[in-house]
Amino acid sequence: MRIVLIGFGTVGQSFVKLIDEGEDYLRNRYGLEFELVAVSDIIKGSVMDPEGLDKAELLKLVTKTGSIKSYSQNDSGFDSVESIRKSDADVVVEVSWTNLETGEPGITHIREALSLGKHVVTSNKGPIALAYHELNSLAKEKGVQLRYECTVMSGTPAIILGSEGLAGNKVMGFRGVLNGTTNFILSRMEQGATYESALKEAQGFGYAEVDPSADVEGWDAVGKTVILANTLMGARLKPLDVKRQGITGITVRDIEESKKRGGALRLVAEAWTEGSKVEAKVSPKTVDSRDPLARLSGALNALTITTEGLGDVTIIGKGAGGVETGHGIISDLIAIKRLSGH
Amino acid sequence: MRIVLIGFGTVGQSFVKLIDEGEDYLRNRYGLEFELVAVSDIIKGSVMDPEGLDKAELLKLVTKTGSIKSYSQNDSGFDSVESIRKSDADVVVEVSWTNLETGEPGITHIREALSLGKHVVTSNKGPIALAYHELNSLAKEKGVQLRYECTVMSGTPAIILGSEGLAGNKVMGFRGVLNGTTNFILSRMEQGATYESALKEAQGFGYAEVDPSADVEGWDAVGKTVILANTLMGARLKPLDVKRQGITGITVRDIEESKKRGGALRLVAEAWTEGSKVEAKVSPKTVDSRDPLARLSGALNALTITTEGLGDVTIIGKGAGGVETGHGIISDLIAIKRLSGH
Repeated sequence: MRIVLIGFGTVGQSFVKLIDEGEDYLRNRYGLEFELVAVSDIIKGSVMDPEGLDKAELLKLVTKTGSIKSYSQNDSGFDSVESIRKSDADVVVEVSWTNLETGEPGITHIREALSLGKHVVTSNKGPIALAYHELNSLAKEKGVQLRYECTVMSGTPAIILGSEGLAGNKVMGFRGVLNGTTNFILSRMEQGATYESALKEAQGFGYAEVDPSADVEGWDAVGKTVILANTLMGARLKPLDVKRQGITGITVRDIEESKKRGGALRLVAEAWTEGSKVEAKVSPKTVDSRDPLARLSGALNALTITTEGLGDVTIIGKGAGGVETGHGIISDLIAIKRLSGH
Repeated sequence: MRIVLIGFGTVGQSFVKLIDEGEDYLRNRYGLEFELVAVSDIIKGSVMDPEGLDKAELLKLVTKTGSIKSYSQNDSGFDSVESIRKSDADVVVEVSWTNLETGEPGITHIREALSLGKHVVTSNKGPIALAYHELNSLAKEKGVQLRYECTVMSGTPAIILGSEGLAGNKVMGFRGVLNGTTNFILSRMEQGATYESALKEAQGFGYAEVDPSADVEGWDAVGKTVILANTLMGARLKPLDVKRQGITGITVRDIEESKKRGGALRLVAEAWTEGSKVEAKVSPKTVDSRDPLARLSGALNALTITTEGLGDVTIIGKGAGGVETGHGIISDLIAIKRLSGH
């Protein structure tokens, strides 16, 4: 399986490390051989080798110099789209940054790849939240797969659970704690921390970005909510259709209030069916203490999917992290082999 | 997709009802059309029609008379193996009774079906617990699929989660509450009931059989443990390799003791890696109250799979029931279509 990697940040590097170190295991267990034929990153540079790049060398280089431009004196000078076009790859792994307003440059990358008949695996929430139906139709038309396990709960297989595991069941709605940063902050506030100190702590652990607004204002959870509603429930929501309230206004008193009511305050992402419409919301809510969503510590995520035939099915697992996302990408690549016989 | 159904008890009837009532949904959403060409049940009779049996008629008949022998004056007189051989089917759905000592007659049915190049979907724990590696090799050799989602947690997709969702991750072990009857009994004892009254109540609800020993002695959980260990961890365990202790000796005092230690007593099914070996055990254990396994009410099941790359992933959902199992069979049939293009 010949791969072009678009984006060489934390996730891209974790993925390359995993397929390098796991080479024997993946070959013996799944009959999979990965050839990394091109890497393109807007900052770190673009390299290409139809014979296969040296993964360990790329990782050493980027760790040492923050760039891959000096790889074999061989920066291709290609931008990401040229890298997709000119590499003779079967699969494009798209892990560039998420933009929930435009979906770019992810949408362009994915559209280009699918148009050329290449499978796509992405961890980028923007394109799936904003253009899933268009991109999925294009994939079907071209007879290739578009996979996006890592856009929700990183490598914890929430998407395959909902789409393949629950196949044949109508999904009526879902409720989830889908953002690890806010869950960490609310958990710490339960233990007595203020919002400000809990946020600082989250930043110290690397959970929260220096600009934490995507997390604490609820946008990250909104993106995931739209992805789940559109892919599992057939909805056609946009991020602005989701009612949204973040946790920046939450005080220790709110937390105490939830505790008194026998529950825990969580940033809950939910969607439900109203007649033929799907409605969705992200907001802080008191969750009953017996609910799996209430008992998540730290950066864990949980998702309860409500189906017509099977009732509630809940999945709990890690919701973020480079290694976790890297594993999710590998599971998507194995699915491509399983389903298309590559 | 042409189907032979072996076994027409609760599960078989629920399955036929679901594909009858869900016909339009399954066609429109998944492009699936099911033709039921034969049904064979050791007590209720065997019928066959290459043009497709009338599902509603069969259900009416079995509800009214407990038999299908009078269907169109047309009992074929075939036994189950002849039904598999003589019907021109793509898939055999095997839902006859579980026997954890011999695996029969399930093993014979499945071996016959696979040998003839037919896919198999089964809810029967016996053949998968006792002969998974042999049957799976045969399926691979014949280029067909052997699917068994419903053998663990009924339609809650524990198997697809572990095998496809976590593909690429090494499974190091698991812990689960996999038997609904014992979980119901222990939950009721927590609320003050004695073992005897809780068991009676479980029988009243139809959770426990008149002879409840398969549940309360731990054999049902042993079967599921062997299936998970052999299919997800590559083990080669037999039921007798699993250390087993049931709940018949549990007293209200044991339950109180667990509560005092801040947990709940559960019948825990677990497997773990010791060097290159897989060890497994089913026994009553005190589970910490923060553990998802501790907080299951009634007949819910939960399974936590420990992987090398992703840590713990937990799934919670219904673990038994005719309708739930019927849904699991349908998800397996959809997977066969997805993977083989039927």
